Amino acid sequence: MFDAIQPDLELADSLFAELARATRRGRGIVRDSYGAGEQAGHDIVRAAAQSLGLAISIDAIGNLTMSLPGRDRAARSIIMGSHLDSVPQGGNFDGAAGVVAGLCALSGMRRAGVVPACDLAVMAIRAEESAWFDIAYLGSAGAFGLLDPRCLAIPRSDNGKSLEATLAERGFDAQVIRERRRLLDPAQIRAYLELHIEQGPTLVEKALPAAVVSGIRGCKRFRNARCLGEYAHSGAVARVYRHDAVAATVAFLHHMEGVWRRAEEAQADLVVTTGELYTDPDMHGPSKIAGETRFVLDVRSLSEQTMTAVASEAREAAARIGAEYRVRIELGDTSDSPPAVMDSRLRARLLSSLGEPFEMASGAGHDAAVFAKLGIPTAMIFIRNEHGSHNPEEAMSLDDFAVGTRCLLGLLADFPF
Amino acid sequence: MFDAIQPDLELADSLFAELARATRRGRGIVRDSYGAGEQAGHDIVRAAAQSLGLAISIDAIGNLTMSLPGRDRAARSIIMGSHLDSVPQGGNFDGAAGVVAGLCALSGMRRAGVVPACDLAVMAIRAEESAWFDIAYLGSAGAFGLLDPRCLAIPRSDNGKSLEATLAERGFDAQVIRERRRLLDPAQIRAYLELHIEQGPTLVEKALPAAVVSGIRGCKRFRNARCLGEYAHSGAVARVYRHDAVAATVAFLHHMEGVWRRAEEAQADLVVTTGELYTDPDMHGPSKIAGETRFVLDVRSLSEQTMTAVASEAREAAARIGAEYRVRIELGDTSDSPPAVMDSRLRARLLSSLGEPFEMASGAGHDAAVFAKLGIPTAMIFIRNEHGSHNPEEAMSLDDFAVGTRCLLGLLADFPF
Repeated sequence: MFDAIQPDLELADSLFAELARATRRGRGIVRDSYGAGEQAGHDIVRAAAQSLGLAISIDAIGNLTMSLPGRDRAARSIIMGSHLDSVPQGGNFDGAAGVVAGLCALSGMRRAGVVPACDLAVMAIRAEESAWFDIAYLGSAGAFGLLDPRCLAIPRSDNGKSLEATLAERGFDAQVIRERRRLLDPAQIRAYLELHIEQGPTLVEKALPAAVVSGIRGCKRFRNARCLGEYAHSGAVARVYRHDAVAATVAFLHHMEGVWRRAEEAQADLVVTTGELYTDPDMHGPSKIAGETRFVLDVRSLSEQTMTAVASEAREAAARIGAEYRVRIELGDTSDSPPAVMDSRLRARLLSSLGEPFEMASGAGHDAAVFAKLGIPTAMIFIRNEHGSHNPEEAMSLDDFAVGTRCLLGLLADFPF
Repeated sequence: MFDAIQPDLELADSLFAELARATRRGRGIVRDSYGAGEQAGHDIVRAAAQSLGLAISIDAIGNLTMSLPGRDRAARSIIMGSHLDSVPQGGNFDGAAGVVAGLCALSGMRRAGVVPACDLAVMAIRAEESAWFDIAYLGSAGAFGLLDPRCLAIPRSDNGKSLEATLAERGFDAQVIRERRRLLDPAQIRAYLELHIEQGPTLVEKALPAAVVSGIRGCKRFRNARCLGEYAHSGAVARVYRHDAVAATVAFLHHMEGVWRRAEEAQADLVVTTGELYTDPDMHGPSKIAGETRFVLDVRSLSEQTMTAVASEAREAAARIGAEYRVRIELGDTSDSPPAVMDSRLRARLLSSLGEPFEMASGAGHDAAVFAKLGIPTAMIFIRNEHGSHNPEEAMSLDDFAVGTRCLLGLLADFPF
C-alpha cells in the first residue's frame, strides 16, 4: 500500500541545514544534553512537526513525541526515533538522522493522504550521549522509569551542575525519576525503529548505502581510571626508583591492546578504546616525571561474557603493572550497558527492502537497546557515513539517507505482519 | 685559614622561610621565570645581601650579583651561584639552595672578619628552568652572550607572552640578547661553584648528606611532539580501520621504554621521560577514538653519542609505528643541551672536605653546565633531598645543607691552589 509513498527529502534537507546552523560551535556541533544545544534541536523538529499537523506531546523529562494518528487509535503504536543531543564537537547526523527520517516518512504519508493502521510516532529522545552526564540513554531509560534515582546527582561534565538541577532549569520534573515513574508503557508499543548513521567505516569500505543492524554491542566503561605515582625531576631519577604514572599507564594500555589482539585472533567480538588520557596540566612539566594520569577505558562487545572477562583482565593487569612500576592504577567502577538483540522478524523485513541486503553489528550503543531489552520488537537501519561519528566531519549523503528512509517506509507498509 | 669559619645558618633558615612565604601558591612554589614569583625571590636575597654589606649589581637581563670584595680587586673572582626561578608547582630548594649557600658562606666570612684573596661573588641567576620559556639556562647563557636572538620570540608557556615582551615588562634590555652582548667575561672568572639539592633519591638511598658532582647529563628534548590520527566513535570502528592517536602514542612510548631498558643492559648512561601527555580536552570524549595527542619526550645522558643515537631511534620508531597505526607521529625539533664536564681539581678538593667522599652524575641540567662549557673551572655539590625536586615535596635538612656549605667554604679556604 505504501510502495508509492516517497519520503519528504526536501524536509530532510532543510531540517539538517537548520540543525547545523543552530548548533554549530566552531568546527563541530554541540547539542549538549538538556542544554541550549539539545533544546535548539527540539525546538526545530517540533516546529516542523507542527507544520505537518502532527500531534505533539512532551513527557516530564523532555522527550518529544510527534504522532500521525492511525485508523485504530487504541491499537499499539509504532515508534520511530532517535536522540537529538550530540557529543561535544560532534557531527550533525548522529542521532538527528533518525528523528529527521521519522518526520520525512510521516510527511510522505501525509502528502500521499495515507492514514496508517495504528498511530505512527516519531520520538525525539533526550540525552542519549553519556558525554554530558556519565550515563547512557537518560531520555529513553527515563521514559520507561528505568533510571536509578541516584543518577540525579550526576554532575554535567562541563559545568558540574547535577542532572537534577539541570532538569529543573529546563522546567522538567526530576520527581518522576526519583519515583521511577513509567512515562511510556512497553505494552503499548508494537515496534521501535531507529535509523542511525553508521559510526564506523564498514559501509564506506563495502560501498553500500545502508545496512540492517544485527545487534548492539554492550559497553563496560572505566570512566574515571587514574594512575597515581610521584612527581620527580625527569633527569635525576633512575628507572628503578621511579614512580612514573605515564610509564605505568603506557604499559597498562599497551597490555590492553594485546588483550584485544588476542580476542581478535580468537574471533571474539570486542573493541577496546582509550579516548581520554592526560597528565595534570597544573602539575605536569616537560622536565618532571608525571605523578598522575587520568584516562578512560571503554570496552564493548556483543557478548556480555567477553566484556566481563576483559574487565576482569584489566583489573588484574592494573594491579600487576601498578606494582611493577611502584604506582597505583585505580580503574574505579564501570558504567555498564549490556548488549541488545534486534528482532529477527523486523530484521528480515528490513533486509528484504534493501537493494543489496547486508547486516552488521552496531559497535555503538543506541536508545534502541533500551526498547529491545524491554521486549519491544526493535530494529535499526544504518546509513553509510564518511569519517565516522562523534566528530565534526560526519558526512551522510541525502541519497543514502533516502535509501534508509524508504526501507523504513517499506516496513511500515507491511504492518501489521 | 677559613677552617674556623662557619656558614651563617640562621640566615639560611630565615631566607628559606621568607622565600617559601613569598612564593607559595597553593601546595607548591611558583617562582615563574621573569615573573612575579622569581622577582620576589630576587628582592628577598638582594635585601639580605644589602644587610650583609655586599656590593650589589644587576645586569641588563636581571641576573643579580652580590660580592664580597677581595684583597686583590683586579684578580679573577670566584662565583658561587644558582637560579631563583622554579618550575610551576615546584619546591622551595631547587635553585634557591645554591644562592642561599653562597650568602651564608659570605656572611660567615664577614662575621669572622676575613677578607678573601679575590672577590667572592654570589650570583642569583635568572630563568634556569625551561618550563616557562622553552629554553634552558636563559640567565646564565644570556650573561655570556650565548643566546640565539630568535629566543626573544619564545612565548611563555602559561601566558603566551614572548620573552622579549616579558623582559621589557620587567625593565630589562632585550637588545643585549639581540646583539649577543657579553655581560660577563669568562676570563675574569677563576671558578664557578654551584650547590644544589640532589634531584633524585640516590643520597637518600645511600644515607649520605652530600655528594660531589662528576658531570652533568645533557638533554635532548622533543618538546612539542604530537600524534595526529582521526576522531571516531569508540565502539564502531574495527582495529584495522582506526587512526587512533592514543593507541599509537602508547605503542611509541612503550617502544622508547624498551630502548631505555636495552641501554641500561648495555651499561649506557640514559634516562627517558614523558612527563606531559594529553588528548585534546576540547575534542576528546569517553566514547571517541582520540584524533590527537601531544607529549614531551625528554632524553638525557652523560654521553652526547647516546643521546644522538636515542633521538635517531625515536625518529625511526615514530615513522614506523605511525605507519603501522595509520597516524602521523610528529616529534618536531629537539631543544638540546650537551653534557658538561666538571673540573677534576675542584672535584678532588671538594671530595677531600666531605666526611664520606662520594661522587655522582647530575641527571638534571644546571647553570654550571654553561660555565663549564666556556672552560671556566666548575664544580657542583649535591645536597641530600627527599621526594626529588620539581615538586612541592622537596625536603632538604638544614644539617645536610650545612655539610655542603662547609664543603664550599673549605674550597674557598684552599684558593688559590
